[in-house]
Amino acid sequence: MTKAEIQLIRSLADKRGRAEHGLFVAEGEKLIGELRASHLGVRKIFALEGVFRGPEVETVTARDMERLSLLKTANTSLALVEIPRYELRPRELAGRLTLALDDVQNPGNLGTIIRLADWFGIADVVCSEGSADCFNPKVVQATMGAIVRVRVHYTDLPRFLEAAAHELPVYGTLLEGENIYRAPLTEAGVVVMGNEGRGISDAAARTLTRKLFIPPWPADRHGSESLNVAMATGIVCAEFRRRADARPE
Amino acid sequence: MTKAEIQLIRSLADKRGRAEHGLFVAEGEKLIGELRASHLGVRKIFALEGVFRGPEVETVTARDMERLSLLKTANTSLALVEIPRYELRPRELAGRLTLALDDVQNPGNLGTIIRLADWFGIADVVCSEGSADCFNPKVVQATMGAIVRVRVHYTDLPRFLEAAAHELPVYGTLLEGENIYRAPLTEAGVVVMGNEGRGISDAAARTLTRKLFIPPWPADRHGSESLNVAMATGIVCAEFRRRADARPE
Repeated sequence: MTKAEIQLIRSLADKRGRAEHGLFVAEGEKLIGELRASHLGVRKIFALEGVFRGPEVETVTARDMERLSLLKTANTSLALVEIPRYELRPRELAGRLTLALDDVQNPGNLGTIIRLADWFGIADVVCSEGSADCFNPKVVQATMGAIVRVRVHYTDLPRFLEAAAHELPVYGTLLEGENIYRAPLTEAGVVVMGNEGRGISDAAARTLTRKLFIPPWPADRHGSESLNVAMATGIVCAEFRRRADARPE
Repeated sequence: MTKAEIQLIRSLADKRGRAEHGLFVAEGEKLIGELRASHLGVRKIFALEGVFRGPEVETVTARDMERLSLLKTANTSLALVEIPRYELRPRELAGRLTLALDDVQNPGNLGTIIRLADWFGIADVVCSEGSADCFNPKVVQATMGAIVRVRVHYTDLPRFLEAAAHELPVYGTLLEGENIYRAPLTEAGVVVMGNEGRGISDAAARTLTRKLFIPPWPADRHGSESLNVAMATGIVCAEFRRRADARPE
């Protein structure tokens, strides 16, 4: 473990450092194991003795791990992983359910949403440029390995949605939307979720085919806090999948 | 602001201190405003100049607020609030949807679940003695004010559920449960959610009328991480309320 490597890892805590080096940091045996078994390129692993074997593995002490770790509590292992580059054309959305995030800012929310996408069999999450970075160490850890299976894209979101709306319905959850349980939902589509405070931007809202709302109980009640964006995403995904499952084949 | 008050506030970071003094700490203008308008007893408020008025308000400096705060980032105000004592007999559950938590440990999860209960019009959350304490400062803040409206109880959970099962159905989510979307659900009932790692304990599982499972997509897929307990609670509550709403009057 060289000083340059320590500096490199520190620099990967920031988006700029990650962009410069094309690498992100993953920590923990389970996550790194999943990364190694995936299509992603694991360039180097620092690990306590006996945790991993291979030409890219360097054994370090527990004290070294504490110096290297970007998390509050150091793990048994830390990997440098190549940031994957994915492409997604609106035409490829056909037949599939896809999530779009309009400036979701909180790393924990983004991580939870990527994990949800994995659970609900959603292959792609398309983010606006202003969204949290999915290779932020906090997001990577919060995905619990889902980052290996879900492709996260960053793009000019309103433009992407405009193109997508030519191919299939684009849904979004807004306070003025209709009751999701009474709205017709298609099996394939794009579902847009908005920023924690501001919701969906006007530019993205203009592209929506249908506006949805998760009703509180009782439905005409007011004054209570709204649902957190990750929670709303989970409930919306569950409802889309429930409908698809209930559909006659 | 006396030294004794600073010590008192510090002691309220721990469950023992809260039990001893019968008080908990709430921070922030919005939350304290909601507490003052509620049935809860707000004993004292420390606040920056101009934030609150009243005989129980003491104006302090920003520096004092930083010393007092139990949170990472100090707020404009901090209140000492009397811990409410609620009673709930199984007979009172009739006609209502109630949540039961079997050793949910993470304060963030508990806070999110209390917030969900508020959204979905669930008046009572019944916790096992081993669950996180709802008056932990992290939980209080995570509820975003819902702690004012939702009654949280601590009790011998298996015993409570056994008594409840004589009154109405007791549901629980388990890996071996049936697809929640295909299971008959009643409007009233108790829904049990389990510990983050171990799920529902055997003692609580024995009381269940019906075991439910939120299917991933596709439903026969394996190997992916399970849903977080707060997320699962949100999806289950949404499904119970959707069914009740779809029922003919």
